[in-house]
Amino acid sequence: MELKPALYLIPVSISNAPLRDSLPEGNLDIIRQLRYLIVENVRTARRFLKRCDPGFDIGGVTFFELNRHTDPMEVSGYLEPLRKGEPVGVMSEAGCPAIADPGSLPVSIAQREGLKVVPLVGPSSILMSLMASGFNGQGFSFNGYLPIDQKERERSLKELESLSRKNDMTQIFIETPYRNNRMIAAIVSALRDDTLLCVACDITDPDHESVKTRSVAEWRRAKYDFDKRPAIFLIYSRNSVSHKR
Amino acid sequence: MELKPALYLIPVSISNAPLRDSLPEGNLDIIRQLRYLIVENVRTARRFLKRCDPGFDIGGVTFFELNRHTDPMEVSGYLEPLRKGEPVGVMSEAGCPAIADPGSLPVSIAQREGLKVVPLVGPSSILMSLMASGFNGQGFSFNGYLPIDQKERERSLKELESLSRKNDMTQIFIETPYRNNRMIAAIVSALRDDTLLCVACDITDPDHESVKTRSVAEWRRAKYDFDKRPAIFLIYSRNSVSHKR
Repeated sequence: MELKPALYLIPVSISNAPLRDSLPEGNLDIIRQLRYLIVENVRTARRFLKRCDPGFDIGGVTFFELNRHTDPMEVSGYLEPLRKGEPVGVMSEAGCPAIADPGSLPVSIAQREGLKVVPLVGPSSILMSLMASGFNGQGFSFNGYLPIDQKERERSLKELESLSRKNDMTQIFIETPYRNNRMIAAIVSALRDDTLLCVACDITDPDHESVKTRSVAEWRRAKYDFDKRPAIFLIYSRNSVSHKR
Repeated sequence: MELKPALYLIPVSISNAPLRDSLPEGNLDIIRQLRYLIVENVRTARRFLKRCDPGFDIGGVTFFELNRHTDPMEVSGYLEPLRKGEPVGVMSEAGCPAIADPGSLPVSIAQREGLKVVPLVGPSSILMSLMASGFNGQGFSFNGYLPIDQKERERSLKELESLSRKNDMTQIFIETPYRNNRMIAAIVSALRDDTLLCVACDITDPDHESVKTRSVAEWRRAKYDFDKRPAIFLIYSRNSVSHKR
């Protein structure tokens, strides 16, 4: 079936697990038909395409690079094929495009111009860690990175803890992998004993995935080492009184 | 390969699209090996399993029902097979279990007891609408349902708008489908002209999916009818000054 013109948002696997375990087969039918791709890095994008289909005609694809070095003024031009009726794809380095990466810029331009946008299914460490944490999934916030400065980080952690209690919401954030252990140390030193912390790492990796929820008091006594593993952090502090609809 | 004992969190499709377009094939290998399933509704769970595999041995599965009628005290018993080394699955009615549904209770019990929890990949209207909205995916909150009372709803919408501006965060919420049009009317009457509203509906449905972002001023003039369609709402209000790491 011929692909309708649209901006397709294409998730990329987040581990070395077989693709059939983390991406719907139907995504491949779409990827194979795309001749224009907006990607964060051409080299790793090629590698992913070859992994999807060793026979993929990479020579027939025009790549547009979108990353911190891209002039935002250029991005609108990346949508030129779509304006002429050709489908265009957006791929991030890992996970879902436009979530915690620069991919949302072409999407916002497409929306402003009334161009069709089609999101595809794929792995999101934010959502999967939330599912597996056991925390409240009916209300949650993703906060990206916290400040690096120690004092500011402490203030920010306490603020998230108090927001979690006040609004009964799970608070999610990420850290650069080589700082994971320091992040946990900061959390156990700043937060209440009974606040729950979930550390999720290597999501979708069949051999190394680990999603562990413990109280801050338990983490303080626990042995752990998450150094350089892709991880995500969730805190949840329950208050006996919480507002519901 | 024999399935490791764990609590598997199994996403269910959210539209009538072919399963191969919204679920990884690998999920099926896991589903086929499960003999214990925690589900919201046995009848619709059976229907989904038959859709996954018409030859599925449903007679060999023990179902545990988890919904608003379930006594929370009983849920711990649902994990008895897992404590004995048998894998157990959790399925919601649609989408990802433990996100905006009661599935997080058995997960939190499993986590407390140190039992392994494995989330699988699947469609989430929250995440997919966020990807396709063009809004900030580096910071966002999911707020569930807003209050129904008109005055309280207005206050809550204004609060989300001001939080979006203050923290540069996308604010996401849902509504019962037959109230969608009234929700949009409430939004355009309460919020600023330049605040952006994205209405995403029928996510993953190849024929009816629609994700549209417009300013409140534009929605006010637009013709729309989202009555009884599964929808999700996102607002994003940009401030020239926003805090970054």
